Amino acid sequence: MTQEPVVLYKDRDHQCLLFDELVTGEGVQSNQFLILHKGKAVLLDPGGDLTFNALSSGIATFCDTSKLDFIFASHQDPDIISSLEQWLLSTPCKVISSRLWARFLPHLVSDSVRSSIKGSVFDRIIAVPDEGINVPVGDTVIQCLPAHFLHSVGNLHFYDPISKVLFSGDVGGSFGAGKGGDPVEDFEQHIPNMIGFHRRYMTGNRVCRLWADMIRSLDVEMIVPQHGRYFQGKTMINEFLDWISNLQCGTDLLTEDNFKIPE
Amino acid sequence: MTQEPVVLYKDRDHQCLLFDELVTGEGVQSNQFLILHKGKAVLLDPGGDLTFNALSSGIATFCDTSKLDFIFASHQDPDIISSLEQWLLSTPCKVISSRLWARFLPHLVSDSVRSSIKGSVFDRIIAVPDEGINVPVGDTVIQCLPAHFLHSVGNLHFYDPISKVLFSGDVGGSFGAGKGGDPVEDFEQHIPNMIGFHRRYMTGNRVCRLWADMIRSLDVEMIVPQHGRYFQGKTMINEFLDWISNLQCGTDLLTEDNFKIPE
Repeated sequence: MTQEPVVLYKDRDHQCLLFDELVTGEGVQSNQFLILHKGKAVLLDPGGDLTFNALSSGIATFCDTSKLDFIFASHQDPDIISSLEQWLLSTPCKVISSRLWARFLPHLVSDSVRSSIKGSVFDRIIAVPDEGINVPVGDTVIQCLPAHFLHSVGNLHFYDPISKVLFSGDVGGSFGAGKGGDPVEDFEQHIPNMIGFHRRYMTGNRVCRLWADMIRSLDVEMIVPQHGRYFQGKTMINEFLDWISNLQCGTDLLTEDNFKIPE
Repeated sequence: MTQEPVVLYKDRDHQCLLFDELVTGEGVQSNQFLILHKGKAVLLDPGGDLTFNALSSGIATFCDTSKLDFIFASHQDPDIISSLEQWLLSTPCKVISSRLWARFLPHLVSDSVRSSIKGSVFDRIIAVPDEGINVPVGDTVIQCLPAHFLHSVGNLHFYDPISKVLFSGDVGGSFGAGKGGDPVEDFEQHIPNMIGFHRRYMTGNRVCRLWADMIRSLDVEMIVPQHGRYFQGKTMINEFLDWISNLQCGTDLLTEDNFKIPE
């Protein structure tokens, strides 16, 4: 099965594509992203075994998968990077991930695959320090921004300075609100699709606020999460940043009632 | 390769076994656990593709793997449960996991495996509510205790009331301090092996303190983490609980300096 991706951005040299319909069966809906730049090809958060075949076919229309340059993994979750083994085997890609997960990702790779891939698993992983880095992709970069504790303790967001798209991982994620390829139309009406997820999966207000303040200093045209709809335009983006800056979530909401031995 | 496990507890009807040397190559050291109770067999945090073959061989000496009853997954990380697909295929086990990950774990399973296993993936997963549950294993139980945000936002610890072992996942984990099958001998000397990991991977003091207060109400003889050495005896366990109750970590340590656009 192949699916036509949504074009988030396109000019002569640069494209950002979103796949939003590859998850079949019982997995939670998720978006996968392909960035193409002057012959370079980059995947963001490609997912697990569930989406490997469909994504592999889906991107083959747009690039030579045997020459994939990079995979960027925002964090370590099953829906983000558990297909690592297959991408390492079938492409020469380097994998960009928080330094917190560089030592854990080799657990995704069996002995038999390890002996078949080019180079060691560790040599194929670029461990990003907590303060983030800019990764050169041809004559542009993808910026890896700190987004730790949102939700993973070691978490990165990816900013593309050409398209001005911020790929925000789970931040801004929504469920049951239509396809990932559609923009949010009414922010207030969209809140119920996000709030339960953010209250439970994000770690606390302190880090939401620090993150939002950092993002305000960037020139962002779209915030595109890994689940559900995206936020387009300065007005909508500011509404989202204001909302998350004021969100009480995660450890803010815990009391001793949440830590009891089950009877 | 098979490895003789460490016996944490053994009586006529009940055994707790620890495998601490199955990780080869570049993955971080991790412990895997097998509990046997009157013909029932339970694995805790079996790991990823990296350890599947070795663990599968290792436990075959002690139980009929084709009759494995349960896998308990403390959280969603690669070194915890990314071998899910292979266990679902080769055993009839049910998988116990936080409700936060029940919708994400199917991303670990490819279409081809999904069509080959008994039942749907979702039917094989028991989603544990945030307050925890007791899972019957023959005529005993394994208690699933809330340990959320330590480090995963949806995180469980497992308490075995017969052996009085608390399987504490990443909490108490240490690196470079010898094998997982050895107890900590001097608490103060052990702190340097734990502190960097806990400061960076645990979410904040508030939740450390709530967790420790809950554990003080349990009759615990051993705290056995998923990485490195374990804590044995009331004195050592109290030293550990006092230490983690006072630990500043994770979001406690963040300021705006940690959230800047990389230059």
